[in-house]
Amino acid sequence: MKRSFLLMTAFTAVMASAQVAEDFKPATTNQEGKEYPMVNSQRMVRAQISAPDAKSVKLDIGGVKYDLVKNAEGVWTGESAPQDEGFHYYQLNIDGASVPDPGSKYYYGASRWGSGIDIPAADEEFYTVKNVPQGSVNEVYYWSSVTESMRHGYIYLPAEYYSNPTKKFPVLYLQHGMGENETGWSAQGKTGIIMDNLIAAGKAVPFIIFMDNGLNARRPGEQPMGFGGPRPGGPRPQGMPQGGPRPGGPQGGPQGGPQGGRPRMGGAGFAQMARRMGGAFEEVLIKDIIPMVEKNYRVIADTEHRAMAGLSMGGMQTHGITLNNPTTFAYVGIFSGGTISPDELTDAADFKKTNKVLFMSCGGKETGMAEGDNSVVKVAADLKAIGINAHSYISPETAHEWQTWRRSLYQFAQLIFK
Amino acid sequence: MKRSFLLMTAFTAVMASAQVAEDFKPATTNQEGKEYPMVNSQRMVRAQISAPDAKSVKLDIGGVKYDLVKNAEGVWTGESAPQDEGFHYYQLNIDGASVPDPGSKYYYGASRWGSGIDIPAADEEFYTVKNVPQGSVNEVYYWSSVTESMRHGYIYLPAEYYSNPTKKFPVLYLQHGMGENETGWSAQGKTGIIMDNLIAAGKAVPFIIFMDNGLNARRPGEQPMGFGGPRPGGPRPQGMPQGGPRPGGPQGGPQGGPQGGRPRMGGAGFAQMARRMGGAFEEVLIKDIIPMVEKNYRVIADTEHRAMAGLSMGGMQTHGITLNNPTTFAYVGIFSGGTISPDELTDAADFKKTNKVLFMSCGGKETGMAEGDNSVVKVAADLKAIGINAHSYISPETAHEWQTWRRSLYQFAQLIFK
Repeated sequence: MKRSFLLMTAFTAVMASAQVAEDFKPATTNQEGKEYPMVNSQRMVRAQISAPDAKSVKLDIGGVKYDLVKNAEGVWTGESAPQDEGFHYYQLNIDGASVPDPGSKYYYGASRWGSGIDIPAADEEFYTVKNVPQGSVNEVYYWSSVTESMRHGYIYLPAEYYSNPTKKFPVLYLQHGMGENETGWSAQGKTGIIMDNLIAAGKAVPFIIFMDNGLNARRPGEQPMGFGGPRPGGPRPQGMPQGGPRPGGPQGGPQGGPQGGRPRMGGAGFAQMARRMGGAFEEVLIKDIIPMVEKNYRVIADTEHRAMAGLSMGGMQTHGITLNNPTTFAYVGIFSGGTISPDELTDAADFKKTNKVLFMSCGGKETGMAEGDNSVVKVAADLKAIGINAHSYISPETAHEWQTWRRSLYQFAQLIFK
Repeated sequence: MKRSFLLMTAFTAVMASAQVAEDFKPATTNQEGKEYPMVNSQRMVRAQISAPDAKSVKLDIGGVKYDLVKNAEGVWTGESAPQDEGFHYYQLNIDGASVPDPGSKYYYGASRWGSGIDIPAADEEFYTVKNVPQGSVNEVYYWSSVTESMRHGYIYLPAEYYSNPTKKFPVLYLQHGMGENETGWSAQGKTGIIMDNLIAAGKAVPFIIFMDNGLNARRPGEQPMGFGGPRPGGPRPQGMPQGGPRPGGPQGGPQGGPQGGRPRMGGAGFAQMARRMGGAFEEVLIKDIIPMVEKNYRVIADTEHRAMAGLSMGGMQTHGITLNNPTTFAYVGIFSGGTISPDELTDAADFKKTNKVLFMSCGGKETGMAEGDNSVVKVAADLKAIGINAHSYISPETAHEWQTWRRSLYQFAQLIFK
């Protein structure tokens, strides 16, 4: 009995060491010169930090906290389970304090600036910087008549905007998810890189992209926006239904599991909610952003050269705003943000007449959207039957995360303004 | 005896509480919605973090570590001594681990992305966003023939670049300090905001600014650059002499005291060192960046419309590069980076003929540069005597930090291209 226990222990130890491939490399999202965090070929994340007086250090990623182990010098090291390809928010926890990892670059998501890590992906070529004609992502402040304040956004201008100084371009208005901000699409979303590569390859026509903050638009005196529109004087919204990555625990940590807690995105109640999603942001977009972009940049200022898309909450905003303003946008993209159903379009004659592409996508691991009666594939087929040029896309093996949305932008950009 | 001791204790306690003004407000550099860190009217910083299981939490700012105190809920709170006006790097230390404060936004300095805090300043108006015509700060990737890689910089385009689509503009090449990168001038330096405000007020002519990374330029196979030029195959440089903010302790923390450890910036040895400062970056600037900017943007591509400036190490690079390329730049700015002395210009006929403004500045607390034989004021007077249009500026009550450099840019921008 004792011998078999010893054998089993030895066997387990061998198995455990065989399970971790020792080919860890610094993550591409690390700060320059920082060795940790690392990723191996199994897509496990290895974190390390010096915390000589700490009792407990954990790596908090994908909704799971992994214990790190301390060495004689007070340096803690440990690995996560394999992660999905693409970008994930994460953090460290030191004796109960949730903090950014000093080794990573920082990204805005889960309602905080904090650590992010990119897990190498088989298709990462499409969002890798290449020596092709380069557009630029520009930081812009503008005056909002709605919020009566200066606001902050980013605009992508394609290379040809600079090299062909008389040409005018179409514009895509592109929105982030819950808990994120106007930096998401250009930073972790890699929007500029994806577009430069697509345009250089002749797969997309050159167009401008404006990326704003869809959460912080408030009329003077108004409280922060909740779902279903602003609630002046009401409590700070608790983020239900969850869109983008959400707090995983009491400290407001990174995203939990890929699906848990997010309601089914379909049905009449959902459609009504989506229509109310715009709130003050809808007004800012229609009254301030679009006129500002069309005044300050060389833009083809008509419906057929205007698109709107967004991820998760930004997809629901796209849903609501494009239906509420049915003759404003000819191209509509909803990434992991549910669907626009044929039922909603029964009386939407203007939208049906105006729309040239309605694109809906999600990650293959987003069970509510990737399969069943409300799946993007099924709804797109139903929309085609009523004459809408609907497209669907399912990102292989990804969840409600940025790899799904990078791929969605890559697909959507090839369909519009053509 | 006992009574007088009690009285004294009571007196001390009253004094201590009288010393801290309880008018703390969230810092302007906080993440949206985050209450801490806070600053009071005495310019003290109050930090707070939940770390229920920690034994020790410290606020590490200005080269001093301040102990925080834990309450019954495991939340730690504490204050620093009064800080100088303007921007400072800082961090928290939790049981020996140096980490970013989850409440602040993050900035690149002291060779890491980490916490920064802006202390309100009497003159902050000049770097506050206003409803004036807005230029934009644009993120740009470009191919470098020197490093044989894609490189990353930022370009500021004034509002008129967009509104007046045939006009061409002068260009300033503007460099950061040691331990910083290409994001410094636009983020903590507030370059775009300062320029938009100056141009709107008619105090500066509209010009373009290109901001690159002066530390990471390496020829293929070369090691990271040290002072005195690249040292292929040599050890990673330890950063002597220190320019920008520098590690305060064994964990590589934020800046220490304003002066300690930085050598006197003057004399023949210094001049020789400055001439060797360019390294691979000099080649990247001359062969790649300037031609790229002059090809891709509407630029007046001649010497009289080209300026170079930099802070600390970037000022020393400006010193070296403008003397090594004496007919390339008509305007030269050196902020907290020493001086160009009349001795150095004895044989520099081309430089003397080309130069239209030579501007040198420092903070009033930078004793080596603010006073004495090598002070910016004294050297500027000596340069005027040999026919150079030299200007000096001393930023009141600031040290080797960003408030000095924001003010220096504000002054320098009003002198050039006029």
